[in-house]
Amino acid sequence: MIPIEDNRPRRTVDLTTEEAWKLLGAATFGRVVYTQHALPAIRPVNHLVDDGMIIIRNRLSSRFTTSVYESETVVAFEADSIDPIRHTGWAVIVTGIARPVEDPDHCLRYGRQLQPWVDKATDTLIAIEPTIVTGIRLLDETHPS
Amino acid sequence: MIPIEDNRPRRTVDLTTEEAWKLLGAATFGRVVYTQHALPAIRPVNHLVDDGMIIIRNRLSSRFTTSVYESETVVAFEADSIDPIRHTGWAVIVTGIARPVEDPDHCLRYGRQLQPWVDKATDTLIAIEPTIVTGIRLLDETHPS
Repeated sequence: MIPIEDNRPRRTVDLTTEEAWKLLGAATFGRVVYTQHALPAIRPVNHLVDDGMIIIRNRLSSRFTTSVYESETVVAFEADSIDPIRHTGWAVIVTGIARPVEDPDHCLRYGRQLQPWVDKATDTLIAIEPTIVTGIRLLDETHPS
Repeated sequence: MIPIEDNRPRRTVDLTTEEAWKLLGAATFGRVVYTQHALPAIRPVNHLVDDGMIIIRNRLSSRFTTSVYESETVVAFEADSIDPIRHTGWAVIVTGIARPVEDPDHCLRYGRQLQPWVDKATDTLIAIEPTIVTGIRLLDETHPS
């Protein structure tokens, strides 16, 4: 049986910063958003949260990596979990500064904890230091989740 | 029983444009990426695909909407379906020009087909005309999907 989409509009509730971090920490992947040649760019990446930072490791385009190494680069990071049938779930959006992880101990630990999901060279660890964290939850009021 | 993540790196295969469109057309939501005050911004939106365009309807920030109305605005659109346990799935990324939908017939039809998922005023229909469409599939070679 094909499930039927529930088209009733969902009530949206803003997440607290604490809730947003909890959801980000429990998620294992999201999307990093950056500017490339003055154009918006996005890439799915797996991540971890440590010490109030989002850590990603991925084969980002060399220009992006270069940009992160050369100067403070503003990026956004988004994770969500939205049920396409029930239209409920949550989304968290972080805006922050991306910087290379250079401390050898951190590199070692993150490199071990953050295994690449893809068969590409992923030799760059980047930490995103959040400046703005927002999020919403889409609630089915009839069956609160 | 908590499922155990499969940490073997997945083979990534580039999607053809045709495969990418098929996946985008079957998906019901994605994320629109744009530049706001020279900073990268992202927002989850539900969408439909019609006549080679991605149609979205959402309460985008008024500045974004204004920007789309004032001039051709480059945006990215991303949709994905990635299994957080098996690390398999796909992602499609489109870069294109966002323009307001102004044709009354299209407005009427899209407005009917594209019901808002949230309880906010979503009175702007925007069409994204793709210029670049790329995508990948993450394959578990032992159990091809």
